[in-house]
Amino acid sequence: MTATSEDRRPDGSEARVVPVFFLSDSTGISAETMGNALLIQFPDLHFERRLIPFISSVEEARKVVEILDAAAAGPVTPLAFSTTALTEIREELHKSVCPLIDFFDLHMSRVEATLGVPGMRVAARLHGMGDVQRYNQRMAAVEYAIEHDDGQSMRALDIADVIIIAPSRCGKTPTTMYLALQYGLLVANYPLTDDDYPSDGLPSTVAKYASRCFGLTTTPLRLSQVRHERRPNSTYSSLSQCTLELRRAEDLYRRNRVPFLNSSTKSVEEMSAVIMQSLRLRS
Amino acid sequence: MTATSEDRRPDGSEARVVPVFFLSDSTGISAETMGNALLIQFPDLHFERRLIPFISSVEEARKVVEILDAAAAGPVTPLAFSTTALTEIREELHKSVCPLIDFFDLHMSRVEATLGVPGMRVAARLHGMGDVQRYNQRMAAVEYAIEHDDGQSMRALDIADVIIIAPSRCGKTPTTMYLALQYGLLVANYPLTDDDYPSDGLPSTVAKYASRCFGLTTTPLRLSQVRHERRPNSTYSSLSQCTLELRRAEDLYRRNRVPFLNSSTKSVEEMSAVIMQSLRLRS
Repeated sequence: MTATSEDRRPDGSEARVVPVFFLSDSTGISAETMGNALLIQFPDLHFERRLIPFISSVEEARKVVEILDAAAAGPVTPLAFSTTALTEIREELHKSVCPLIDFFDLHMSRVEATLGVPGMRVAARLHGMGDVQRYNQRMAAVEYAIEHDDGQSMRALDIADVIIIAPSRCGKTPTTMYLALQYGLLVANYPLTDDDYPSDGLPSTVAKYASRCFGLTTTPLRLSQVRHERRPNSTYSSLSQCTLELRRAEDLYRRNRVPFLNSSTKSVEEMSAVIMQSLRLRS
Repeated sequence: MTATSEDRRPDGSEARVVPVFFLSDSTGISAETMGNALLIQFPDLHFERRLIPFISSVEEARKVVEILDAAAAGPVTPLAFSTTALTEIREELHKSVCPLIDFFDLHMSRVEATLGVPGMRVAARLHGMGDVQRYNQRMAAVEYAIEHDDGQSMRALDIADVIIIAPSRCGKTPTTMYLALQYGLLVANYPLTDDDYPSDGLPSTVAKYASRCFGLTTTPLRLSQVRHERRPNSTYSSLSQCTLELRRAEDLYRRNRVPFLNSSTKSVEEMSAVIMQSLRLRS
């Protein structure tokens, strides 16, 4: 975040740094998501991002306009993304000379026309608690995930929505946490070790829940690097051991028709989306 | 998700259930965020949501159009939200008779005009790994959060970005996980117990990191309910004990100028946004 408005490129030319603002009457999570989904299409540009959340009054909006106008007086035209819903605050923000992409403005009338009723146009807390029951389910899922991380507890495994199985350091934990926190799924994870391979079937602990198992794999090189950070120069982190474990794990998945994913090329968000899709197809 | 197209209301009238589709060439997280930010403005309507992620070819888009058109032949006009970037896939989706809110279409040209360069218009993985260094930081932060959950480890507390302190069951863990997973912050949390109150200062373990501490509180009734689920009819879950602990914790925060939040009315997303904002102001 220490970028200046001009960055020197390797070839000596100067790359513009575009000031970008995310404006919201709430957390700003939607404004950031929407704005970044567009900005990712400009990989050659540099952006200096600033989030201004919780804009809840016209007076606050006026201060934001001052910030935007100050940025607009600089050498590079800034860009602002807003998800603010309140009409009077939106109108205030539009007074700025800074180009403003107003997600609410452009789509709301279209959605209203399709649905045939007017939207409330109030500051709505999309990332607030919302449905309290669903919110509490997500919080309970985080606890369940921590309790069941890395095969620590086999209690209440029967109520798990998903059991992620994989050799140590293939990315089970972050994927587990993401599914719990975002979707309120009860996710356990179980580390495959050398003891689990002699038999043809799944480890006895998870065998009866085979239809809810999901496997992870990665590349031997990547696994060896990640394990090396934990235990340098050990058998555990050696390339030969990693190659062997991954081959055995993949054999196990295939033999038992457990769907699996390679975590070396997919983010936790992408793996979670695939796991959710697979659950829908299997249920 | 078992809603039919007509729901009976308490007054005997029928509430329409609007079929809603989220279409994406990637995970669909952005399409859901954007669509739901608009739909939350229609609290009286019922929506039957369906996510169709990973639409990666014109052929797949054609199948999606069939699904949309089938829904459009039903009694209630459906609504589709798309974040697909590829022009040929977008054009295919627009062939459906279903009203389509195309987030990409409407904003991209505006952003291009402001930035003065054309966007790539490729299927970009906003929720992919992206910046690998930043991605690895997020994954490492999840591990750090688990290691430091509930005061389990005081190792490497000096590198924590935030230390969340609160009495047991005030919501430390989910907030910790959210900050780690979404923002890659190193977050430890420390449970305040009766032992921590006799002194006027912060508990010795966290005292030297006071500027990075953030407190949580809640209402005595809420705390009592949540604790009751864990240990029914105990002193721990009694209203008097909860009232006492919360009063002492809030005194501690005030005396030591530790900013704090009430978790009974704020979601983890909202608390995280406030904590992030406070860190920016304090740094």
